[in-house]
Amino acid sequence: MKQQNSNGSRLKIIPLGGLEQIGMNITAFEYEDTIVVVDCGLSFPEDDMLGIDLVIPDVTYLKDNAEKVKGFIITHGHEDHIGALPYVLKELPVPIYATKLTMGIIDRKLEEHGLEHLVKHKIVKFGQHINLGQLRIEFIKTNHSIVDAAALAIYSPAGIVVHTGDFKVDYTPVYGDAIDLQRFGEIGKKGVLALMCDSTNAERPGFTQSETTVGRTFDNIFSENTTTRLIIATFASNVDRVQQIINSANKYGRKVVVEGRSMVNIIDTASSLGYLDVPENTLIDIERLKDFPEERTVIITTGSQGESMAALSRMASGQHRKVSIGPSDTVIFSSNPIPGNEKAVSKVINELYAKGANVIFQDVHVSGHACREEIKLIYTLVQPKYIVPVHGEYRHLKAQAGLAKELGYESDHIFILRSGEVLELDEKKAEITGKVPAGSIFVDGLGVGDVGNIVMRDRQHLAEDGILIVVLALDAYNNIVVSGPDIVTRGFVYVRESDALIEEAKEVVMEEMDYCMEKHISDWGKIKTRIKDSLGDLLWKRTRRRPMILPIIMEV
Amino acid sequence: MKQQNSNGSRLKIIPLGGLEQIGMNITAFEYEDTIVVVDCGLSFPEDDMLGIDLVIPDVTYLKDNAEKVKGFIITHGHEDHIGALPYVLKELPVPIYATKLTMGIIDRKLEEHGLEHLVKHKIVKFGQHINLGQLRIEFIKTNHSIVDAAALAIYSPAGIVVHTGDFKVDYTPVYGDAIDLQRFGEIGKKGVLALMCDSTNAERPGFTQSETTVGRTFDNIFSENTTTRLIIATFASNVDRVQQIINSANKYGRKVVVEGRSMVNIIDTASSLGYLDVPENTLIDIERLKDFPEERTVIITTGSQGESMAALSRMASGQHRKVSIGPSDTVIFSSNPIPGNEKAVSKVINELYAKGANVIFQDVHVSGHACREEIKLIYTLVQPKYIVPVHGEYRHLKAQAGLAKELGYESDHIFILRSGEVLELDEKKAEITGKVPAGSIFVDGLGVGDVGNIVMRDRQHLAEDGILIVVLALDAYNNIVVSGPDIVTRGFVYVRESDALIEEAKEVVMEEMDYCMEKHISDWGKIKTRIKDSLGDLLWKRTRRRPMILPIIMEV
Repeated sequence: MKQQNSNGSRLKIIPLGGLEQIGMNITAFEYEDTIVVVDCGLSFPEDDMLGIDLVIPDVTYLKDNAEKVKGFIITHGHEDHIGALPYVLKELPVPIYATKLTMGIIDRKLEEHGLEHLVKHKIVKFGQHINLGQLRIEFIKTNHSIVDAAALAIYSPAGIVVHTGDFKVDYTPVYGDAIDLQRFGEIGKKGVLALMCDSTNAERPGFTQSETTVGRTFDNIFSENTTTRLIIATFASNVDRVQQIINSANKYGRKVVVEGRSMVNIIDTASSLGYLDVPENTLIDIERLKDFPEERTVIITTGSQGESMAALSRMASGQHRKVSIGPSDTVIFSSNPIPGNEKAVSKVINELYAKGANVIFQDVHVSGHACREEIKLIYTLVQPKYIVPVHGEYRHLKAQAGLAKELGYESDHIFILRSGEVLELDEKKAEITGKVPAGSIFVDGLGVGDVGNIVMRDRQHLAEDGILIVVLALDAYNNIVVSGPDIVTRGFVYVRESDALIEEAKEVVMEEMDYCMEKHISDWGKIKTRIKDSLGDLLWKRTRRRPMILPIIMEV
Repeated sequence: MKQQNSNGSRLKIIPLGGLEQIGMNITAFEYEDTIVVVDCGLSFPEDDMLGIDLVIPDVTYLKDNAEKVKGFIITHGHEDHIGALPYVLKELPVPIYATKLTMGIIDRKLEEHGLEHLVKHKIVKFGQHINLGQLRIEFIKTNHSIVDAAALAIYSPAGIVVHTGDFKVDYTPVYGDAIDLQRFGEIGKKGVLALMCDSTNAERPGFTQSETTVGRTFDNIFSENTTTRLIIATFASNVDRVQQIINSANKYGRKVVVEGRSMVNIIDTASSLGYLDVPENTLIDIERLKDFPEERTVIITTGSQGESMAALSRMASGQHRKVSIGPSDTVIFSSNPIPGNEKAVSKVINELYAKGANVIFQDVHVSGHACREEIKLIYTLVQPKYIVPVHGEYRHLKAQAGLAKELGYESDHIFILRSGEVLELDEKKAEITGKVPAGSIFVDGLGVGDVGNIVMRDRQHLAEDGILIVVLALDAYNNIVVSGPDIVTRGFVYVRESDALIEEAKEVVMEEMDYCMEKHISDWGKIKTRIKDSLGDLLWKRTRRRPMILPIIMEV
């Protein structure tokens, strides 16, 4: 790697899926002819993104600079950090660097898309450095709600950036070591240009509890509920959580069934890579559930967020083919609802209660993100010059900015970046110097990006008030109506209840056609507009609704 | 009123908007030839009720027994207790009984619907008894997040039922007296058949704090934020909250602007009835805001739940015509998000921060509902024989059932009723004896009940994948295609990007038409089905989407 070069180039930090695209973590680090991309996540559609399956980042900027892009560095295996890889790699086939479990999860995902041989996959150990053009990346051990999460030190000729990834400080983790606080301190002593620190819990005071505290809670639950089956819902990717359930099951002599596709996948990956220790004869297939007394079994399942298609939701609504819920079940939510999922989770809890189950949903979970005192600890170890809060909504980034001010940072050293904003920085100065294309691309079925604003607006209109279609056949020579108007509605009003309204609508259309004949209006565009306007007025007056009105004229 | 009659009739309790219709509070109490209805609420549509404005209860049972229905008893003025009155009274024009402020709010609502003279409105004082056929109703003072809330004692020949309404125990309320605990005790001593108690906070330990604690918080906020304008969002109906903001404003020398239609309405009603004490020269019109320095003003506004059309949301998104948000604003959410509204509230908080405002959203609110210790207090005063938990989701009713068991009640004395279930009870026995029609009716624009399952399913289908319309003109005599097929899509895929797909779709339609000709299939229903199936297959294969496919055949 070159030393600090004489022309004094600055490092650029460009979030491409940042603030306006919550959840889509993807950040470009650019120094002269080198771009390294940290993470490549997707986000799930908001309520108003009708019919959309996934949202991925717009990587136009990377494609326009494809010759500079040296690789993807992935901090950990959550969807909001890896989910867009199958889409983005097709357009930017560059190597991926990640720790072992993270890479295991990525491998499985790329296999599902038939992309396993597209790019080089390099597994990185904690402490290892990767040279990519003029940038060098060091992986630093952290703790999070998924094993093998890494923070990054990004060395550039303009200075060092420390990026925490998603993290917490866990002094007593379930698997592996505690976060490498020594290394944070050591790098801090060298002098750090900027810190990009997880903001998710920056509104919460104190410390996040250790994952091992949940293990003790499980032991209590197992010892207090000895007469019922246990069904425990948690996040599929939380391997440590699953490990602790297996530990308690083993201790209290219960067989373990794993249910839900993503849960089965992750346990499979984690076991084969040695991240999960399953005693022999503990796991059984779901088909064998009936061979054991209920009080000797525990089911670990997906669906802790009330996702309507997940295993737990199907059990709760009586649609699961293998598990029916009853009074001899105790269902445990080892999770908190992610904001936006509260109602869905409540719905499942209500259904479970209604089936007679006992439900435990409080205090069987700890967060995977650092609270305020942990964030302060990282600041104090790293002592960066500039602050770039990352991960979280604006309110969370803002909360970290407030924390930075409490620690003595001036406002002009703190940067909350929006999608596509370019922060250029070196020891002398940091400033936002421009904006590159960035945004969301909708994935709907096989279509990537073919559902844009017009289609979305039409879906919202259709969802709100439905559609009314008027079909007319006109004589090709003199625009005389030779058939129709026929009127068909969908999602507007049940037609049998509105026969009179439909008749009235037909009359309005015929009046407009007569008017057009009389005035010699033969332009179909104008005719359609007149029909739309008159019908719109009629329907609003009669129903106070505004269905989409679609006139179709056939020439015969 | 008759004394306990010899044939030993039982009292019937029938929730008509109960468990499956959260929020719609309406319960029939029936004794022989008398029905009295407690509350008449609406609920707001769930996310999957596309385009629906309101949900009201199905009162078929009351209409079928109209000659028995003696009146509506309203416990307090919240929408989930009064909102369906304008719709239900049209079909069941019987008198309404309520306390003064509650009736003021009802009067305004009925006026808006032009129904003010439809039925008799009788204002009831706390302690007053109303005789309605064989039932007698006593209004008992309680506390809640709206003034003038009442509990009810319902006297029947079969025994007394105590119904708390929505309530909390506030020893130091802002307006009026504390809950009449003495009267609860006195009635309890007489012997109470059943207690119907608010379950909303039955999962929460301890006591709900007094409303006056929020006043002290306002004083702190006013004294600590002396250099910015204050914008405080809260529930329009919480008159006590508004009173405390006005008190603080007065103390700290700020002018008060009230913004948001429902807030203006309720303050108008509450002031004119004497429930709100506004010192002279405190309230100013929003037009006069500019005449005062920002730090001498406070705006009380609607929108504390992130409702997209409310005043605060319009301010936050820059769409409010009179108020623009900037760094010289401190915005206070005097509310907690109601479950389901978390994301909407977060969105507004993010937008406010992004505009540079300071935002305070923690600990400036207390609940209006009783927590576990308060519920236990009511149980201990009333000492009922049977328990019928009310108000809340299943999980909350279940939590109260658990509390009742802690207090020594047997499961067979606790009844969680579903919509339409008939609980018959007297001193000897209580049991669910049947089920009457009950359910939800959708209000969409002017239509009440005309949007049913088919329309709703169509809207969901349209919202998910849009619509593809195929129009064909056929010769009337031999089913030859004389024009078309024309294909129009909306909400499916942007057509310019899918010309080839549309051409392919037309070919598929023509192939089907050729096949039908060849096989002499002339039934239009069959032809349409074949077109639908073939096109569906093609679109799924090409796009993995399933738009609604609507073939329209014109005869010319």
